[in-house]
Amino acid sequence: MLNSEIKAQLVSVLGDAHVRDDVESRITHSYDATPLYQSMPDGVVFPSTTQEVQDVLRIASKHHIPIVGRGSGSNLSADTVPVAGGLVMVMTRMNQILEIDKENLTATVQPGVYTQTLHEAVEKEGLFYPPDPSSMKISTLGGNIAECSGGLRGLKYGTTKDYVLGLEAVLANGQVLRTGGKLYKDVAGYDLTKLLIGSEGTLAIITEATLKLIPLPESRRALVAHYHDLDAAARTVSAIISDRILPCTLEFMDRKTIQVVEDYARIGLPKEMEAILLVEQDGPLEVVERDMERIRHIAETTGATHVEVARTEADGAQVMAARRNALSALARLRPTLILEDATVPRSRIADMVREINRIADEYNLQICTFGHAGDGNLHPTFLTDARDTEEIERVEKAFADIFEAAIRFGGTITGEHGVGLAKAPFLEWKVGAAGITVMKGIKHAFDPQGILNPGKIFTDQPRLRKENM
Amino acid sequence: MLNSEIKAQLVSVLGDAHVRDDVESRITHSYDATPLYQSMPDGVVFPSTTQEVQDVLRIASKHHIPIVGRGSGSNLSADTVPVAGGLVMVMTRMNQILEIDKENLTATVQPGVYTQTLHEAVEKEGLFYPPDPSSMKISTLGGNIAECSGGLRGLKYGTTKDYVLGLEAVLANGQVLRTGGKLYKDVAGYDLTKLLIGSEGTLAIITEATLKLIPLPESRRALVAHYHDLDAAARTVSAIISDRILPCTLEFMDRKTIQVVEDYARIGLPKEMEAILLVEQDGPLEVVERDMERIRHIAETTGATHVEVARTEADGAQVMAARRNALSALARLRPTLILEDATVPRSRIADMVREINRIADEYNLQICTFGHAGDGNLHPTFLTDARDTEEIERVEKAFADIFEAAIRFGGTITGEHGVGLAKAPFLEWKVGAAGITVMKGIKHAFDPQGILNPGKIFTDQPRLRKENM
Repeated sequence: MLNSEIKAQLVSVLGDAHVRDDVESRITHSYDATPLYQSMPDGVVFPSTTQEVQDVLRIASKHHIPIVGRGSGSNLSADTVPVAGGLVMVMTRMNQILEIDKENLTATVQPGVYTQTLHEAVEKEGLFYPPDPSSMKISTLGGNIAECSGGLRGLKYGTTKDYVLGLEAVLANGQVLRTGGKLYKDVAGYDLTKLLIGSEGTLAIITEATLKLIPLPESRRALVAHYHDLDAAARTVSAIISDRILPCTLEFMDRKTIQVVEDYARIGLPKEMEAILLVEQDGPLEVVERDMERIRHIAETTGATHVEVARTEADGAQVMAARRNALSALARLRPTLILEDATVPRSRIADMVREINRIADEYNLQICTFGHAGDGNLHPTFLTDARDTEEIERVEKAFADIFEAAIRFGGTITGEHGVGLAKAPFLEWKVGAAGITVMKGIKHAFDPQGILNPGKIFTDQPRLRKENM
Repeated sequence: MLNSEIKAQLVSVLGDAHVRDDVESRITHSYDATPLYQSMPDGVVFPSTTQEVQDVLRIASKHHIPIVGRGSGSNLSADTVPVAGGLVMVMTRMNQILEIDKENLTATVQPGVYTQTLHEAVEKEGLFYPPDPSSMKISTLGGNIAECSGGLRGLKYGTTKDYVLGLEAVLANGQVLRTGGKLYKDVAGYDLTKLLIGSEGTLAIITEATLKLIPLPESRRALVAHYHDLDAAARTVSAIISDRILPCTLEFMDRKTIQVVEDYARIGLPKEMEAILLVEQDGPLEVVERDMERIRHIAETTGATHVEVARTEADGAQVMAARRNALSALARLRPTLILEDATVPRSRIADMVREINRIADEYNLQICTFGHAGDGNLHPTFLTDARDTEEIERVEKAFADIFEAAIRFGGTITGEHGVGLAKAPFLEWKVGAAGITVMKGIKHAFDPQGILNPGKIFTDQPRLRKENM
């Protein structure tokens, strides 16, 4: 519950309806899409303007109250769990697309706009905003920016980072910071725009973003390739890239994932196969057709047992929808689903999948692996039960081994989900002691009191690596 | 001259030949490509390994000696002028392309590799590194990264920032920082890779970079469009983009630039025209041909008096070479050439060119304007004489007015040249007081003693804006 004096100050800024500290509001904002984490906030606030965000931050700053910015809470690193209590600041009332500028190919949006809402709005104008996290129906653009969301189209188009040109954000002390603009080139000092992207709400609260749009590709086509053999699938991925084709998506599912998705979606996926690849290309029709033929040929000559090019764009969309629903499909099997996103250079995908399977056997766990083969971003997904503490202990050990393997293969502990709470103990494995020191210095420069999303990214309890144990 | 004790320490690390404090070495490293700035260093060092860079930084750190990292010194913001004395650290001995990885589409390079050397090496493999600063024949990749160099292909392909996946850098205290990797997706903490890009040697010394490559476009074609009227040229730019075509280059030259370039290169540019646009598209042949036809049609219907599509790729290359040589051509006219790079949203280009011409008249100065119309990055170029102090005073007033106009049009004080010394007084106009505070905090986090390129980006003497005067 909020201290009555502070509550009165907040109400005077936001109005009574937008300051909540009833139990229902606090419980519903005590968790997010990440399993295993929950912590009660003292209250929940719903600002509707940048000025209101400033006023709330000034109050929070004065009273040292933690502030956790939140969109839809669909992140997978427990980034919006208020572990230090304080206020959850929900940005969903700031949900306007302010402008679609066709001359400069930009969109200016408030943070609470749903990702898919923006997709639909710009595609009507023949424009394209590529970042497509699997949560895009419900995720907000502010959340996407805070997490630097990726998605299926990362290989060809990059991630959220590549499409944010400018930001308005409010600092912990209530000052407004404006970065970038409708500019493709801007080197006026350090790149604060990119620094805020993926900063997980620990540096500032994003209140507006100017996004880069590109022309909508004219056409799109998909194919599915089936494999009896994991290595053959990896060879296809490597051969496509080495042949200098960049498909817009290049997705992988292992046997266990195929089985579950097919049981859920019933679209004819081959349940007896060791792996499938889903490949999609977009662009001018003649280029797409040529690329699909080349990819079909590459898949066949690198060991696919069967390759099928979707006859229509709609057929292709159905296959991709099945992939997008992999998480929902898997969620039916066991009470708790924990999705990881260790990422490796794409040439090491087969090594990584084999290592994940070995780790699953070692700890006697169910792991289904799918993900973005084209950019090496795999999602080994643990099917488990949060109530089984002994099994969860094994899950945590398995995680650590997966992160260690990813680092060993030249990869990272998180490709697109962020550090949050879940991976804070492992961050030093990737960035080293020097990296941690510098990052903590940056955090201090923005938020000397540490009121913005405390407890995230950094931890007092880093995990030792095996080699150091 | 170096203190003898410090010199002995440096010699013990680098060897006698690679520590210089003779007058010739100091003079030749007292300036860079930026006119009007010069300052003598105490010495010049030439490390050949990361370990040597670390050792030099430890010595510098212990004795509070300024360190100015330098590649070829081709930057245009006086970023490698050692205003606080100390050591210039020249990175040109670290000039190896360490790897071109065709499976992961990456190149790993040392900082002293020339930009064009990398272009040639990767293009032999059918791969492409798009950033193409006009200085690319002599500029180094380390310098490109420190400055976040742009170039002609920014509109379609982005700038250096978009092609650096990972860095090895040495901090002021001699610690090695490693960021990113052969990974398109990596959200492990704050994005230190992007933060170091464009940090102008003030945060760390870059010792290795992993760069992203893309498939080399199959073909390339150029056209030239002539205009009696500036607004018509701007209309063509807007119409191309609004028609959702992203050419790989979309360059602008005003009348004065055309005249000078034609006198120099003699390739048949129309000296009586008010403006020309040079437009180049690359990609699959059929797409390039279709786009060029569309662009020709757009140019004709928006007011071009004449449009000529280059018959061959070589013809197109000749036209683009003329544009790349604009600076050399202009340099023949007067003793001193000062190139600016105020940048505006591309929809404001005509407004900006008109404003530049008005300012030139107001201060009775010769300004030729050319630049990257597609991304709004203009290079108004002052033809002047550094020895004429009265004229230089007018030049400086005109600069300030140009920056003010760029900001007013939603632009920035520098699109691709960096802040350095030259624009430090104006940085606050773009990033605000909050931005300056945060940037200084970041600087402090990396380099608490302030030994890395002191005097750059930040200044104690910010300029007031007219509106505040």
